Amino acid sequence: MITIYGDKISGNCLKVKYVADILGLNYSWHDIDVVKGEAKSESFLKINPSGQVPVVKFADGRVLSQSNAIMIHLASASRLIPGDIWQQAKMHEWLFWEQYSHETAIAVARFQVVFLGKTVSEIDTQLVQKGYSALNRMEQHLSESDWFVGNAFSLADIALYAYTQFAPDAGFEMESYTAIAAWINRVREKLAVK
Amino acid sequence: MITIYGDKISGNCLKVKYVADILGLNYSWHDIDVVKGEAKSESFLKINPSGQVPVVKFADGRVLSQSNAIMIHLASASRLIPGDIWQQAKMHEWLFWEQYSHETAIAVARFQVVFLGKTVSEIDTQLVQKGYSALNRMEQHLSESDWFVGNAFSLADIALYAYTQFAPDAGFEMESYTAIAAWINRVREKLAVK
Repeated sequence: MITIYGDKISGNCLKVKYVADILGLNYSWHDIDVVKGEAKSESFLKINPSGQVPVVKFADGRVLSQSNAIMIHLASASRLIPGDIWQQAKMHEWLFWEQYSHETAIAVARFQVVFLGKTVSEIDTQLVQKGYSALNRMEQHLSESDWFVGNAFSLADIALYAYTQFAPDAGFEMESYTAIAAWINRVREKLAVK
Repeated sequence: MITIYGDKISGNCLKVKYVADILGLNYSWHDIDVVKGEAKSESFLKINPSGQVPVVKFADGRVLSQSNAIMIHLASASRLIPGDIWQQAKMHEWLFWEQYSHETAIAVARFQVVFLGKTVSEIDTQLVQKGYSALNRMEQHLSESDWFVGNAFSLADIALYAYTQFAPDAGFEMESYTAIAAWINRVREKLAVK
């Protein structure tokens, strides 16, 4: 039995939920309201001194944070991580790219629009450009491959789906991204299968 | 024999160099001038469509990017990655935290000062605050432990050293960070040992 501390408005938190659900893990979900600042509260900082969600707490008190690190740990030895060491390396590559080049643009822009009340035109131009660069990179890859790593659904797809699904909310125009659209449908089929 | 494409002004690229040197790997170093935009050049985008360094190319043509993914791959089964699966998870946690909460503040601020010619006072206040938050988190951890994961030097230390060493160049005042200072000396001793 594990406890997941998270906020379901957060793609990073949803990643952990998706993995726990697919693997059929037994967990309880503890809501932390990010917009209200609960991740920075004194009581939560005792759980994660970095003041970020998601966090997973195990029955013996051990605590793990960082969405992608949590996914890797929960899914170790599952089919969500490729067995081949080179494909594992490519999966790590996409996971780090997601946190550095994708989340930092698309999740941030979406947060500003949906939760801070900015209009799409008020989003910083550089942020928008960075978001489109990330989407272009994904489209390029998905034009050649059904999945991000090898020929199978993996944590890389879950990580990248988490915020790509919300890109339209931030005003990103997705019509031309046909490979991404088809991949989103494939990922949703996988996530619906427990 | 591997080829490392990188720029030695980049902490992310230095991470790969440190790991390759510690492990005694046989490599050639190919300079990519980031400030001149060479990472975004047409010829380099054929190597890494994401337009980022470092990149490692293997003799058979396989290519891997993302500094932390490269380190994990090169160091697999070495003493730089803990054998225990929980400690591996904590190492991943720090590696993702480094890219999300540390590099994005300290490396960015340092780049603005050292390579774009901004003065320290011109750096965005939020960026400075984010940098100090990251340093505070490191100091907190290092006040209780010599290394970031368990009781041993690991990739987490290399990743966090990469840009922490340059924090003073971005105007971060390091005098009060005594645990970080002692850790920097420990890391330097390890890096000097081939």
